Amino acid sequence: MQELRINAERLWGSLMELARIGATPKGGVKRLTLTEEDRQARDLFARWAREAGLSVSVDPIGNVFARRAGTDPAAAPVAMGSHLDSQPSGGKFDGAYGVMAGLEVIRSLNDAGVRTRAPLEVVSWTNEEGSRFTPVMMGSGVFAGVFTLEHVRSQKDVDGVAVGDALRSIGYAGSGASHEVGAYLEAHIEQGPVLEAEGKTIGVVQGALGQRWYDVTVTGQDAHAGPTPMELRQDALLGASRLVQEVNRIARGFPDYARGTVGFMQVKPNSRNVIPGEVRTTIDFRNAKAPTLEAMCAELERAARGIEAECRVRIELRENTYFKPCEFDAGMVARVRDAAAGLGYGHRDIVSGAGHDAVYVARVAPTAMIFVPCEGGISHNEIESATPADLAAGCNVLLRAALHTAGGETP
Amino acid sequence: MQELRINAERLWGSLMELARIGATPKGGVKRLTLTEEDRQARDLFARWAREAGLSVSVDPIGNVFARRAGTDPAAAPVAMGSHLDSQPSGGKFDGAYGVMAGLEVIRSLNDAGVRTRAPLEVVSWTNEEGSRFTPVMMGSGVFAGVFTLEHVRSQKDVDGVAVGDALRSIGYAGSGASHEVGAYLEAHIEQGPVLEAEGKTIGVVQGALGQRWYDVTVTGQDAHAGPTPMELRQDALLGASRLVQEVNRIARGFPDYARGTVGFMQVKPNSRNVIPGEVRTTIDFRNAKAPTLEAMCAELERAARGIEAECRVRIELRENTYFKPCEFDAGMVARVRDAAAGLGYGHRDIVSGAGHDAVYVARVAPTAMIFVPCEGGISHNEIESATPADLAAGCNVLLRAALHTAGGETP
Repeated sequence: MQELRINAERLWGSLMELARIGATPKGGVKRLTLTEEDRQARDLFARWAREAGLSVSVDPIGNVFARRAGTDPAAAPVAMGSHLDSQPSGGKFDGAYGVMAGLEVIRSLNDAGVRTRAPLEVVSWTNEEGSRFTPVMMGSGVFAGVFTLEHVRSQKDVDGVAVGDALRSIGYAGSGASHEVGAYLEAHIEQGPVLEAEGKTIGVVQGALGQRWYDVTVTGQDAHAGPTPMELRQDALLGASRLVQEVNRIARGFPDYARGTVGFMQVKPNSRNVIPGEVRTTIDFRNAKAPTLEAMCAELERAARGIEAECRVRIELRENTYFKPCEFDAGMVARVRDAAAGLGYGHRDIVSGAGHDAVYVARVAPTAMIFVPCEGGISHNEIESATPADLAAGCNVLLRAALHTAGGETP
Repeated sequence: MQELRINAERLWGSLMELARIGATPKGGVKRLTLTEEDRQARDLFARWAREAGLSVSVDPIGNVFARRAGTDPAAAPVAMGSHLDSQPSGGKFDGAYGVMAGLEVIRSLNDAGVRTRAPLEVVSWTNEEGSRFTPVMMGSGVFAGVFTLEHVRSQKDVDGVAVGDALRSIGYAGSGASHEVGAYLEAHIEQGPVLEAEGKTIGVVQGALGQRWYDVTVTGQDAHAGPTPMELRQDALLGASRLVQEVNRIARGFPDYARGTVGFMQVKPNSRNVIPGEVRTTIDFRNAKAPTLEAMCAELERAARGIEAECRVRIELRENTYFKPCEFDAGMVARVRDAAAGLGYGHRDIVSGAGHDAVYVARVAPTAMIFVPCEGGISHNEIESATPADLAAGCNVLLRAALHTAGGETP
């Protein structure tokens, strides 16, 4: 069983065939959730699953479960999966890889005639991206009890179409009963530059960063650039630019994968020869540990008060989002690390900076994730790219970790 | 003659009557150049000038000259003036004050029966503001030979109307011949906060700041805020915010009324959880001395290279505008200072941070300006405000300086 490997060519072929659904001219994918393209992708996955001998069920929020029976009828399934929907200008691998990797694990076990004690399940979660309907990670969120079915089914897209109606129109408003999952493994491209920069093949994901987002208004006084001496100014953009510096200083100064980003800025009146009177901006703070995230925010408040005095402006910080940090199950993380080491892949512990279905599933089942490199760390972009070798390596790690979790038995 | 004063009530009354033309609900003025409102304002000025015994002529770019004969027919006139056009949301005093103050000087001399050796002239220059047609300071620029008549007459507004046609349609495409001006004095609200902050009544204007403007592009690499560690980022907004700091540091560190402003900023993609890949921004540097302005720009280039290395971004600085510093005639400036001192007004030397018609007229005649405070330093705004007492003080300084220049003779 130590010799068992997935079929790298088949995995790549399945990914490429799937990527034809919603393919864009620049080589990416536009497969918004619950659209005709999403239906085609789901249908293809369900067909392939049935061809691999799996029994397919759909739950009321449209999550698709494809189950391979185990030898112990009482055991809860070990699930593997991700999502088939994409961003409007998405890539071929974000999400699709985790579903196709799960399917390839099953196909490889079938080829080798290996059975497992616990059942195996390949899952495609509905609407991970949140591009058409919010909230993001909708299907896994409902599965984990984070959102109620009633709430999310009433959410509407910009055209006023409700999730419930969209589910029915593509034939994926299922009636499958809720069920227990014994463990969950999700393979995914990193969507960041760390593995590539360090030449590692496998990221052993420890969990996901907590996030605290702010809306910020910096208020000064607009005035003419020419007649107003430097010492009499109340320059809102000077204050905002000091805040950008502080956000970066704080993120670099704190431990536990601290990150701080100012991604948005709107200047008023935004004229080259007028000192700005108001700047609206945002702050995105992330950290793996809740207490460290708190400490970053406290330091931000302190820094803002200092800038107010120094630049003669007023800074209003309004928290608008909080996701608590997610720590994956230590035993599951160890299985991923052991699998990578046993297979001889270069690997490192890593945290996910972004949200994934695994973050919600982790609330109801022991969970871990496997990252593989993506070119330049770029995703949510049509040029998103990953190598067949790296994708195969991640799938081999998934195979081994799933087998260890489910209890593999060679015939 | 030392006892001669202008009539403060009449000056204020004329300003208020003029401000009814193009009056806005918030107490300001919308009197765009060469519109019907501009025509009404010109007609009123010309009527008042004729009533004061002046001979009115109009030159081909629409500048209006109202002349009071002197006792020496060979002497070139001493001109006083400013402009009657306004910004779209302008105030009652910017420009109008300089024209009405010149008229009030004439009226006061008439009342007192005082004659001058050189003729006196009150001038209203066409299109100082540049809101409807560019370039700004059009009429004084043509008068001083900065622009050709042919060039500016072909300039068009957003509706495609040319300056030449607009002049004809309001009846101010004149045929007055070009003439020499012996000296020029312009009274104006400060449009800045310095006099108010220091409790001074009169600003003795030394000249106008030179200006160097840049368009700036900061290029990094956009990436997801979550998965990208701080040390692997190429954050264009981090670089741009460092540049804002440096522009302010440079302006505070250099002498000669150094000013530095970043008024415009556009962030791409401008999403709260994406590290910005590109920022377009501007820099406005001003200084009273050309060599110091050069030194500021050299320091900016050096700072930009440092930020490029520090933040792993590329910074492109493209100069798009250069106005050289303007130094007013020392003798004329001394007459303004002596007049303010002799009249017992609190005064200080000051430079103009903005452009004025006087900056162009200074190229062809000895020139000085007189500033009076405006509330909060605010102008180009309907709430622009100045007190009757300060306006009268500035007009008394104009009277005394003009008399000294033109050679006053009591009967």
